[in-house]
Amino acid sequence: MDPTSFVLFGATGDLAKRKIYPALYNLFIDHKLPESFSIIGLGRRTLSDEEFHKHVEQSLITFSRRSANDPSRLNAFLQAFRYRTLDVNHVEDYRKLLELVQRREKELNIRENRMFYLSVAPEFFGVIASNINESGLGSTDGWKRLIIEKPFGRDLESARYLNEQLSSSFEEHEIYRIDHYLGKPMIQNLEILESSNPILKALWSNHYIANVQITASETVGVEERAGYYDHAGAIRDMFQNHMLQILMMFSMQLPKKCDAHEVRFKKRKVMESLRLLQKEDISHHIVRGQYTAGEIEGKHVPGYTQEPGVAEFSTNDTFIAARLWIDDFFWSDVPFYIRTGKRMKEKSTRIVVEFKEPLGGSSDQTKARNLLVIDINPNEGIFIQLNRKDPLQDGKLEPIRIHYSDSEKNAPEAYETLIFDAIRGDSTFFVHWDEVELSWKWVQPILDAFEEDRIPLQAYPAGSNGPAASDQLLEADGYTWWLDSEPTDHNKTIKGEEYEKQLH
Amino acid sequence: MDPTSFVLFGATGDLAKRKIYPALYNLFIDHKLPESFSIIGLGRRTLSDEEFHKHVEQSLITFSRRSANDPSRLNAFLQAFRYRTLDVNHVEDYRKLLELVQRREKELNIRENRMFYLSVAPEFFGVIASNINESGLGSTDGWKRLIIEKPFGRDLESARYLNEQLSSSFEEHEIYRIDHYLGKPMIQNLEILESSNPILKALWSNHYIANVQITASETVGVEERAGYYDHAGAIRDMFQNHMLQILMMFSMQLPKKCDAHEVRFKKRKVMESLRLLQKEDISHHIVRGQYTAGEIEGKHVPGYTQEPGVAEFSTNDTFIAARLWIDDFFWSDVPFYIRTGKRMKEKSTRIVVEFKEPLGGSSDQTKARNLLVIDINPNEGIFIQLNRKDPLQDGKLEPIRIHYSDSEKNAPEAYETLIFDAIRGDSTFFVHWDEVELSWKWVQPILDAFEEDRIPLQAYPAGSNGPAASDQLLEADGYTWWLDSEPTDHNKTIKGEEYEKQLH
Repeated sequence: MDPTSFVLFGATGDLAKRKIYPALYNLFIDHKLPESFSIIGLGRRTLSDEEFHKHVEQSLITFSRRSANDPSRLNAFLQAFRYRTLDVNHVEDYRKLLELVQRREKELNIRENRMFYLSVAPEFFGVIASNINESGLGSTDGWKRLIIEKPFGRDLESARYLNEQLSSSFEEHEIYRIDHYLGKPMIQNLEILESSNPILKALWSNHYIANVQITASETVGVEERAGYYDHAGAIRDMFQNHMLQILMMFSMQLPKKCDAHEVRFKKRKVMESLRLLQKEDISHHIVRGQYTAGEIEGKHVPGYTQEPGVAEFSTNDTFIAARLWIDDFFWSDVPFYIRTGKRMKEKSTRIVVEFKEPLGGSSDQTKARNLLVIDINPNEGIFIQLNRKDPLQDGKLEPIRIHYSDSEKNAPEAYETLIFDAIRGDSTFFVHWDEVELSWKWVQPILDAFEEDRIPLQAYPAGSNGPAASDQLLEADGYTWWLDSEPTDHNKTIKGEEYEKQLH
Repeated sequence: MDPTSFVLFGATGDLAKRKIYPALYNLFIDHKLPESFSIIGLGRRTLSDEEFHKHVEQSLITFSRRSANDPSRLNAFLQAFRYRTLDVNHVEDYRKLLELVQRREKELNIRENRMFYLSVAPEFFGVIASNINESGLGSTDGWKRLIIEKPFGRDLESARYLNEQLSSSFEEHEIYRIDHYLGKPMIQNLEILESSNPILKALWSNHYIANVQITASETVGVEERAGYYDHAGAIRDMFQNHMLQILMMFSMQLPKKCDAHEVRFKKRKVMESLRLLQKEDISHHIVRGQYTAGEIEGKHVPGYTQEPGVAEFSTNDTFIAARLWIDDFFWSDVPFYIRTGKRMKEKSTRIVVEFKEPLGGSSDQTKARNLLVIDINPNEGIFIQLNRKDPLQDGKLEPIRIHYSDSEKNAPEAYETLIFDAIRGDSTFFVHWDEVELSWKWVQPILDAFEEDRIPLQAYPAGSNGPAASDQLLEADGYTWWLDSEPTDHNKTIKGEEYEKQLH
């Protein structure tokens, strides 16, 4: 790995504390950081280097998946860290920053490879990118890269504007857009599962697959994010980015040898093949919901419009379900159902692949459907549902689930994997501009329909699986959401998980 | 179920005690015996009904999978039992038996449905069948049936002779030949697994399957059966019957709705499609082995020829491996490998299906093969081996096993299932004459080759996976026996299992 300067905007913020420092620390322990590595934290607050070190140390103690109680190791890690106060609007501050960056590069013998991580609100992306450029920070002898996180705009127009701002200082191949779902092990396994398993590869098409269901449900409500969320809704907060990204990762058709370029190309193909929603039948394919008061794990919780910070008569969507069609050779006639919502029965992100009955097969209704279930979060695992004869029931057919779970492993968190990839310059599991643009394009008619109230806002009680209309969406095609009636599995909690809820 | 008289020859024998009485008792508890049910035990010994009841009770206490400590339930069960002394050669004894059978039929209001269970050595099958006929026992107003167990002859000729003897008194559809492997849940599930699971059905042919491996290995040696075994060998004791039956059950191609008639027809088709062994290359497809001294689970055990009762220079086979080809539309070009032996590393009966790499797929050698493993005995379960990225190993490919195990269930034993089926008149999971005859026909060239010593007798140390020639059999085709290097799973012991070892 190239010696690297890691310049972090928003160094005293929540994301840095909960995710970025622990990720860097765990990479350090695993010897997955460059040997020469300079980290410069930037923030509005005034902090000495020592205070900053304390701050980082506290973050590790609280949030790292591995303990930070070995002082010599901890110190070796912290000595890479420096702090500078910076006003993002003052180009002069960037010039001073450049001096520090260069001094550290000299001290550590780092060729000018500079990673700028913008852990700040998106309205600052433009000015920071432009000041990086203007100050000379971006004129490096090595490479420069930019890491940013969503939201990448709030519609097609604003996303394009944001991208233009960045483009004046960074080329597309230098921009690493994080979608932390793409760092999750099971998402990273989707392509491998198909391509390296002949028995799955054989089944991976509309010949055998009846439909695909992608669910990301949360039990939490709007929490402290009402100010943002009430103007974003599930469609912007989850659907346009995470859900469509999972759809792309699942459905893209990869060649034998694949690289970041190929993945980007194939993801774009998926978005280009996604059947456009027509204004007149959009309400036939999209369900828009908002939670009312209800019960979650035995506790009464208020309805959305009773949440602090939410407008009294808000028509904001806290749930969305959609039927999508990918009009290509592999997926034609296979409906994809996607839903995401807050205050639902279960916290779970999963993909369910329902298989067709074989051609000419019997229509025996006592049979359960064959399923391939990919559990992404909070559990990680795979199960396959098959039928067999139950020896205790005189040979009646009984569904069985052959199961693999990863829960016991202390696997790297998404941010570790993604930061590691960014430092290596591998953009396979990042969001590319094409995808952002095409996603907004596809979503725009839904945004318009919501805006113009052309899709009814369906109420659903907190603790349910969403509005009845969501079930009807599948029933209309003869299907049903799988696993909704299952007992919830609460036996796994991941450190930092509480926070991830808020990252959506 | 029809009211039935159950006439048991060999009522004081080992099989009755260990398997038949416990099976009947458990069927009784499950309300799976006819409401009117008369059981008449027959033996050489003189026993009163009370002594016989004690004998049955003792059998239940020792061998039943469910407890027999409820006196009222136990008595309700035992009151169906009567005992008579009988000399199998004296037709007069059968006439007296007929009187008892009829008296009980009258008492219990049983229409003359008579099940004759011959739990005796096969040399008595002929005379018993003939005396049943001659005494009038077989002339019933209802149905009559015969249950027998292997060995069904020791070669083609003797099997035919035995069958002719039975045929004079019983029609083929009245004869229920037990192969207790066919009563095992996972064998009974083979057809269901394929036919009721579209994703397996899709994969169930030479398009996707590279080879199939059927193993039945024992850790025990010849035990007290040397007198029989030294003249039978693994080929007669296991291969001709159990192994070829498993092969048929696995590979037969069933239509949508299947019944006993269909299963019988399809099993015969398999045997008819089995490529005949040519005298000149028989040693190319068959491996013959005999164990030498070795170590099993840390204990030294003697070689076969040192076992008590075995001839000093015996060339008897305690191991056989074979490569077979089923020349039909589905299985052409898929080798089936079968092996069975005593004193091997692991006690295990299982089927391993190895899948091909997809057409045009990469030949990445770091990948594990996709496997479907059906564990039959002593564990029951299914696992599927897939590849995935290991998040702890920087995304290196790692085989995972998604697993389903039935171990916790107190499932009916094979004899329960089979006796239940016989009483219901369902012969699906029994051995039909066609299969016996065709199996002996197919095996005959091997018997001849062994007899004439045209296949070298390979030594293998006790506690190994058989002779090296068995591994070479697969290596010649580019394959390997799967799971041989796995740690043995000893965490399950089944009641009565010890005995089953001796039933082979």
